[in-house]
Amino acid sequence: MAKPTHNSLLITIFFVITVISISSPFSFASQPFKFSRAPRFPKKFLHQTRPLQQQQQYRYDTRYFSQRLDHFSFADHPSFLQRYLINTEHWVGPNRLGPIFFYCGNEGDIEWFAENTGFVWELAPRFGAMVLFPEHRYYGESVPYGSQEEAYKNATTLSYLTAEQALADFAVLITDLKRNLSAEASPVVLFGGSYGGMLAAWMRLKYPHIAIGALASSAPILQFEDVVPKETFYNIVSNDFKRESTSCFNTIKESWGELISVGLKENGLIELTKTFRLCRDLKKTEDLADWLDSAYSYLAMVDYPYPSAFMMPLPGYPIREVCKKIDSGPESISILERIFQGVSVYYNYTGKVDCFELDDDPHGLDGWNWQACTEMVMPMSSDRDASMFPTYDYNYSSFKEECWRDFQVIPRPRWITTQFGGHDIKSVLKHFGSNIIFSNGLLDPWSGGSVLQNVSETIVALVTEEGAHHIDLRSSTSEDPDWLKEQRATEIKLIEGWLNSYYQEKKATFNM
Amino acid sequence: MAKPTHNSLLITIFFVITVISISSPFSFASQPFKFSRAPRFPKKFLHQTRPLQQQQQYRYDTRYFSQRLDHFSFADHPSFLQRYLINTEHWVGPNRLGPIFFYCGNEGDIEWFAENTGFVWELAPRFGAMVLFPEHRYYGESVPYGSQEEAYKNATTLSYLTAEQALADFAVLITDLKRNLSAEASPVVLFGGSYGGMLAAWMRLKYPHIAIGALASSAPILQFEDVVPKETFYNIVSNDFKRESTSCFNTIKESWGELISVGLKENGLIELTKTFRLCRDLKKTEDLADWLDSAYSYLAMVDYPYPSAFMMPLPGYPIREVCKKIDSGPESISILERIFQGVSVYYNYTGKVDCFELDDDPHGLDGWNWQACTEMVMPMSSDRDASMFPTYDYNYSSFKEECWRDFQVIPRPRWITTQFGGHDIKSVLKHFGSNIIFSNGLLDPWSGGSVLQNVSETIVALVTEEGAHHIDLRSSTSEDPDWLKEQRATEIKLIEGWLNSYYQEKKATFNM
Repeated sequence: MAKPTHNSLLITIFFVITVISISSPFSFASQPFKFSRAPRFPKKFLHQTRPLQQQQQYRYDTRYFSQRLDHFSFADHPSFLQRYLINTEHWVGPNRLGPIFFYCGNEGDIEWFAENTGFVWELAPRFGAMVLFPEHRYYGESVPYGSQEEAYKNATTLSYLTAEQALADFAVLITDLKRNLSAEASPVVLFGGSYGGMLAAWMRLKYPHIAIGALASSAPILQFEDVVPKETFYNIVSNDFKRESTSCFNTIKESWGELISVGLKENGLIELTKTFRLCRDLKKTEDLADWLDSAYSYLAMVDYPYPSAFMMPLPGYPIREVCKKIDSGPESISILERIFQGVSVYYNYTGKVDCFELDDDPHGLDGWNWQACTEMVMPMSSDRDASMFPTYDYNYSSFKEECWRDFQVIPRPRWITTQFGGHDIKSVLKHFGSNIIFSNGLLDPWSGGSVLQNVSETIVALVTEEGAHHIDLRSSTSEDPDWLKEQRATEIKLIEGWLNSYYQEKKATFNM
Repeated sequence: MAKPTHNSLLITIFFVITVISISSPFSFASQPFKFSRAPRFPKKFLHQTRPLQQQQQYRYDTRYFSQRLDHFSFADHPSFLQRYLINTEHWVGPNRLGPIFFYCGNEGDIEWFAENTGFVWELAPRFGAMVLFPEHRYYGESVPYGSQEEAYKNATTLSYLTAEQALADFAVLITDLKRNLSAEASPVVLFGGSYGGMLAAWMRLKYPHIAIGALASSAPILQFEDVVPKETFYNIVSNDFKRESTSCFNTIKESWGELISVGLKENGLIELTKTFRLCRDLKKTEDLADWLDSAYSYLAMVDYPYPSAFMMPLPGYPIREVCKKIDSGPESISILERIFQGVSVYYNYTGKVDCFELDDDPHGLDGWNWQACTEMVMPMSSDRDASMFPTYDYNYSSFKEECWRDFQVIPRPRWITTQFGGHDIKSVLKHFGSNIIFSNGLLDPWSGGSVLQNVSETIVALVTEEGAHHIDLRSSTSEDPDWLKEQRATEIKLIEGWLNSYYQEKKATFNM
């Protein structure tokens, strides 16, 4: 997921500032600060990565499958082609009931997820498994109506971009593919990270006849309505910084007021443009605040123990490095200069960036923004004390207004819990469902919205203190810490158990 | 469910007859005979029942709830009002976690189902339960687009008449109602018979967070694709007749050829009109065949051990009475006269009918016909030997053509098994799901498509040798046989168990 974009957050700030005139950073920080959108899962910098052809590590064929636009009605819509990546080189085939490892494609180009989900590729030979990476509708190449432009034209064309439709795509694709391969009896194991992890868990729950189990990594299926506290996400981001350095936390907490103060000065926007080495003149302070907020939230998600380039090229434990920069140097260095040095670790770790472009199109017709404005309504607030972000109480009304403004759509904030549950999940699933792993790293701000306790013997939570956003799904590296190796080993053992049970059951029935 | 309507069945017969000239009844019976539609659940004579006001046994309020037309997209459709019946007089309320007994409304006026589901009403006081009977969309008063005419106008307006949408209606209704009553913690138990039983089972599987268990009576959730043999339905109907009398079975089996022969004679249609005391001149022999087929299939469904008036006023074990008529009298009585005497038990038990109207609008824009032509594609054949109906091999192509002709819609014959499963159900649900009772009577032709074996400790099959279509859901009578009393007692015990487990869990969590 990506982090929240909240342009109108600073509109509120400005309003407050105007009314109470210049306020101290601290009192500012206690003013409402608007996080208008749910944070997004980390794919927004996708377009900044190198062309995939050059970095492709895994072999697969690319195929296309014709899907109904609307699985749940018989209205006459055009079908569309869903792209999927397939590798059968290790598959032991239908006669030996070779398993199918199925990654639930999430909000982005499926090739990027395939590249960043090494765990599935590494596991496939061991289990003689086929690997499938189907793309989520409306993302990558899998857009209806012939083009991205047409598909994203308006609320009517976008209206079939929902999780339920995506799950039905998966169900139809698997069923058809298995039938064509005479592999109806091959067990399917689901994988997914982030929103893809939510899809994997929901798929196992809604389509138990299609998949025998799911590894749902960093899947915040409880980040809806009132299931978890609204402050969870930003508190975790903040704690990730605080655990590295209290002064770093405090500097960031103070910086928002400072940012506003400078921005309001005569030539303040020019000063900010210079301080933050922006390529273009800053037009609104909130654009800069968004850019900073993005960095902090993403840093928390990718606070991996080794160098990575999931979002941006970064050192291991990048928050530690950011805080080192923020904390270092003589006291005379200004708060904003410290902040700039800090976020440069995120935005310019390679040191090759001469100036920074702020525009990451927060209000563009991005698929996740649509999803956040329709089903994926994840209420988030920022706590007065525990958060290093400005205080903000979630306001559904203004969220709704923004969604109307952006998409001419009215969100359904209670729909996900109605459709997939969430409240009282332990009681509900204790005697219902099986074979789901919810894996989470507690550094990941999305972990607060996931399942962190075992639900039953077969719906289990794997929690690592030091893990970040679906680190377990990444390919193994020589730098993997022991806890990560152990986590993956447990996952493998559980998946092996699902498969063995399935094979035993089949043997008992058919005497294979 | 109702029985199959298969007008074009006789078109095929006529073709065959024309080609091979007059054939003997026996060789005729081996010719293809077209059952073009899935049998329907028994509600087609609804319009012949007395006005509900006069026969209402149970007290309830009638309310209306605004529903989205399409739960699974954000397209801008008009909402519609779903009718539901509610009774709270025995409900012990939210503080005592009073349960909610929820009947999954099926394809007809909900008042009729409420009247014919006495079991739920009788159970409610015992458990301090609220009773809810929500109506299925597109039936009764719960039609979108303002009127039945508009809703049934064409494939576009009908396109949201699907089981998934109906289940989502139920989910949204329950969730909203519970919230308004501050009864979020009140457990919901689902009930349903026939298609309503399918909905109850699917609802428990798809929405385990909304209902703690389901009694799915006579729910043929396996009557799809190739999950059960296509001959099952008609074989059971036929066996119901055969078990009463082999000669009855044989007479019916022979009668189809006789019917055709007479119909082809000069003035043959007039002869048939007279023999069967029809009010209007018979235009096509197939209309009469349909009428007879209806009677046999419905008789099998309602072959109850005591007099009833579910479809028509009938004696106990009505097939026995029908066969007595068919078998009785001197040998000189013609086959068709015997048949007439037999079906008169069904169509004219009260003896008050002077002449018979055949028209039951088999090709009208009936909701179930739409559902059968879209999702509810239940392939049915008629076996050469075991069936007393003419031999017929299911032909999907011609079924598809008929659906196109009637509704301009293309069926999705694999959708139900993709969406809800069905293949290998025992393996799939053995370690997944809980708290479903599949109750069936083996006289009911729909029982062949239901779950007749225990799946697990908590997904159980209750099978009675002598039961017919969801007899357990009917109100108790002084004539109830012991096996029926025992069946209901087992159901009550199981439901009690679900509720007790739920309450214990809640106590453990909240120390109520």
